[in-house]
Amino acid sequence: MSSVHIDLNADLGETTAGNPVADDGAMLQMVSSANVATGFHAGDPHSIAGTLKAAAAAGVTVGAHPGYNDPAAFGRRFLDYDPAELADEVTYQIGALDALARANGTRISYVKPHGAMYNAIVHHHAQAQAVIDGIKAFGDIPVMLLPGGVAVELAEKSGLTVIREAFADRNYNPDGTLVSRREANAVLHDPADVVDRVLEVAEHGSITAIDGSVLQVDAQSVCTHGDSPGSVNLLREVVAELNRRDIEIRSFA
Amino acid sequence: MSSVHIDLNADLGETTAGNPVADDGAMLQMVSSANVATGFHAGDPHSIAGTLKAAAAAGVTVGAHPGYNDPAAFGRRFLDYDPAELADEVTYQIGALDALARANGTRISYVKPHGAMYNAIVHHHAQAQAVIDGIKAFGDIPVMLLPGGVAVELAEKSGLTVIREAFADRNYNPDGTLVSRREANAVLHDPADVVDRVLEVAEHGSITAIDGSVLQVDAQSVCTHGDSPGSVNLLREVVAELNRRDIEIRSFA
Amino acid sequence: MSSVHIDLNADLGETTAGNPVADDGAMLQMVSSANVATGFHAGDPHSIAGTLKAAAAAGVTVGAHPGYNDPAAFGRRFLDYDPAELADEVTYQIGALDALARANGTRISYVKPHGAMYNAIVHHHAQAQAVIDGIKAFGDIPVMLLPGGVAVELAEKSGLTVIREAFADRNYNPDGTLVSRREANAVLHDPADVVDRVLEVAEHGSITAIDGSVLQVDAQSVCTHGDSPGSVNLLREVVAELNRRDIEIRSFA
Amino acid sequence: MSSVHIDLNADLGETTAGNPVADDGAMLQMVSSANVATGFHAGDPHSIAGTLKAAAAAGVTVGAHPGYNDPAAFGRRFLDYDPAELADEVTYQIGALDALARANGTRISYVKPHGAMYNAIVHHHAQAQAVIDGIKAFGDIPVMLLPGGVAVELAEKSGLTVIREAFADRNYNPDGTLVSRREANAVLHDPADVVDRVLEVAEHGSITAIDGSVLQVDAQSVCTHGDSPGSVNLLREVVAELNRRDIEIRSFA
Repeated sequence: MSSVHIDLNADLGETTAGNPVADDGAMLQMVSSANVATGFHAGDPHSIAGTLKAAAAAGVTVGAHPGYNDPAAFGRRFLDYDPAELADEVTYQIGALDALARANGTRISYVKPHGAMYNAIVHHHAQAQAVIDGIKAFGDIPVMLLPGGVAVELAEKSGLTVIREAFADRNYNPDGTLVSRREANAVLHDPADVVDRVLEVAEHGSITAIDGSVLQVDAQSVCTHGDSPGSVNLLREVVAELNRRDIEIRSFA
Repeated sequence: MSSVHIDLNADLGETTAGNPVADDGAMLQMVSSANVATGFHAGDPHSIAGTLKAAAAAGVTVGAHPGYNDPAAFGRRFLDYDPAELADEVTYQIGALDALARANGTRISYVKPHGAMYNAIVHHHAQAQAVIDGIKAFGDIPVMLLPGGVAVELAEKSGLTVIREAFADRNYNPDGTLVSRREANAVLHDPADVVDRVLEVAEHGSITAIDGSVLQVDAQSVCTHGDSPGSVNLLREVVAELNRRDIEIRSFA
Repeated sequence: MSSVHIDLNADLGETTAGNPVADDGAMLQMVSSANVATGFHAGDPHSIAGTLKAAAAAGVTVGAHPGYNDPAAFGRRFLDYDPAELADEVTYQIGALDALARANGTRISYVKPHGAMYNAIVHHHAQAQAVIDGIKAFGDIPVMLLPGGVAVELAEKSGLTVIREAFADRNYNPDGTLVSRREANAVLHDPADVVDRVLEVAEHGSITAIDGSVLQVDAQSVCTHGDSPGSVNLLREVVAELNRRDIEIRSFA
Repeated sequence: MSSVHIDLNADLGETTAGNPVADDGAMLQMVSSANVATGFHAGDPHSIAGTLKAAAAAGVTVGAHPGYNDPAAFGRRFLDYDPAELADEVTYQIGALDALARANGTRISYVKPHGAMYNAIVHHHAQAQAVIDGIKAFGDIPVMLLPGGVAVELAEKSGLTVIREAFADRNYNPDGTLVSRREANAVLHDPADVVDRVLEVAEHGSITAIDGSVLQVDAQSVCTHGDSPGSVNLLREVVAELNRRDIEIRSFA
């Protein structure tokens, strides 16, 4: 057993209308945690079931990845929910995925909100509380979140375990926010840079921002992407390097 | 405790786009089993949760009422599913309802397929097996079906308990099929006729067809409707008469 | 021909999953303009076609009533659209309704945005411009709006004719906003009050607010409702009174 | 002007949930006719508008590509429609696309049904008539179909022009049906074979079946695919060869 380890997570099971978004099979050979779509922003039950079965076979930990009920935009737009409606949608989605997970040899070990929901609950108090309520209505399972923000506070207050994550391929501002995609340096393309990010999180739980300052974010997982051939190849190089350095990729669970 | 009893069931939780289809509150005061929509043919998580909470408060047994993924037509059209896709959709829907049920103080005690799915599995072998497989992937819970047909055979073969139901307000042909809605005598409108139907099922599990022949269908539940003011009022009269006759309305469970 | 006349409009064609929201047949005997759903917040093509055919037979002017692509909530929640996506959705919806209108003996004479879209464009500049752009991409047809707000300004700037409307059954604050539904006096229930509202709009285009002040809003149409038996009966009384007073109900067109 | 020419068509505009299915930009440089999705089986208004604008810029003829309202399965499953509902859905979809086409500098020149609808109307009389009725309710525009079958008969009877198409990359049985995808020789992978298919259609309108017999199908267009990098590259080679042979790729219109 290695002394240093890291959890790599990725969004999977997001097939829409029969068209896969990511190469789930390739990703499941590399990550330790799969955030599996739950049918609202993406994912139909059969393709979800296929991803769950493959995750079980690969020994990858499964998380529920609920999203806004906005399939046309992949759950990426803010939607002004009645909080009670949002809470019940979260419970519904987790329950649906849990049934498919059990039927395919695995279980849900955590919840990671998707897209606009993930972003909104950093600052939107009512929606953050609704998402926490919806999770707790299902059960006391960990929730994976951006470090900092209202959702982290409310989740911990409610007694849920919080898993903080860092992004493998994004640059950070000194205040802990992501460099906007409108900036030229928003995304990391060099595998060496991504490896440095993963190593820093694995060893210190911290992130070095673009100005060189070190953000103590206590991250326990690193979010990776598999939605393009380029992103899968990038991750492949990163994983090879982690292997060379004897860094174990394993779930936080 | 009365010596004669009957289970009355009804489709509830079928709000679409904020518009309730039935008067769930009124119905839950009269029926003993609620077939609660699971979000595919109708029902959004929040309105479903409200119906589940009200069912729990009223002591009404809850069943999952999964349907085809055809919300535009309320799940009423035959859809030529890949059986594996249908099975996973059934598991997904039951799991989603189960989570909402537990969060609202109740549990799922049975499954009753909806609309075109309910009708198709009487004769469509592959879909019948898929629905049974989808239920069993969730767990070994009873399934409520039309007496006779492929689904009953396959369910019993697979070890599931089958609850056979009769329709409170429909006339039957001598072969056990329903009189077509195109015929003038398809529907019973007189509360006395409906009471006779319920009593016959309660006492003998049989149904008298339009030619006077007696169908031994071993029915254990009677399906009622609450989707119009007329149907709710009809049921009210039926329940009053059952009370006068000391027939207990109670779940098969 | 009467010297005083008024346009009464209502939202129709909003059937969801086979369940009608309003009694379109009854309403078409009373209103002069029908805001017909276009399939996004509600309305399937066949039920829409039925409403269009009935509107043509009743001589009622037809408007397109596009909404947000949020059928689960009937288009009533704010959705943070990319403006270019919103514009194209508006064009799509108007074009779809136009084809059905022509096939059923009528034409689209105006556009009235629905629900959250209608409310957002009073103050949301980018969405207001997007809705105007989407209408103009279809053609130069009038747009029906709440008096005041960003959308009115942008519509007039772009050369579109604006039809301002008042609500038949809602009380107004002195600043021209509606009394919140959380207040006891939000809604008018007395037919006499509604008749007074309609008469004032017909004769002066103005609205008297709850403090007695007169709002000069230049309204040319009055919005009525048909989504409950109560609202249809209320309108029936109002129409009878307008008839007695020889006020003609006719389209602004 | 070349003496020999052929129309190449492809399904485009089928983005779902923000995920493009085909490389529309690459395809529009090669085909002469684009069957553009209309939002039911796939395609959102904004991505559709982008494809229409690109088609206009590339001088590619646009057809409407309506599908079943079954987005979960990309319109690929048979759905047992009420014919009147199907007809109105077809009109709705064509009208929606027409408005977007006009707003983006082009027009609809034909209609090609998609997926399960395309396949069903070869033999399903009621649905075939419904599709024809839905097209004619929009206007008298040509319809692109599989040669043979009920839809061709009914379309010609109704006065619509029929464009018969052959598939570029599929093998045919002697009876004119496609070799099932379950057979090893269902699909043509060699560019030379596809070129031969296109040339035979261009010069004779016929197709040589797997047993060497010649099917006189009077085809005027050849259906190509762009939904994988492999299919785009295959088409690139075919187009290069057609250019070398001085075969003009141009719309039937």
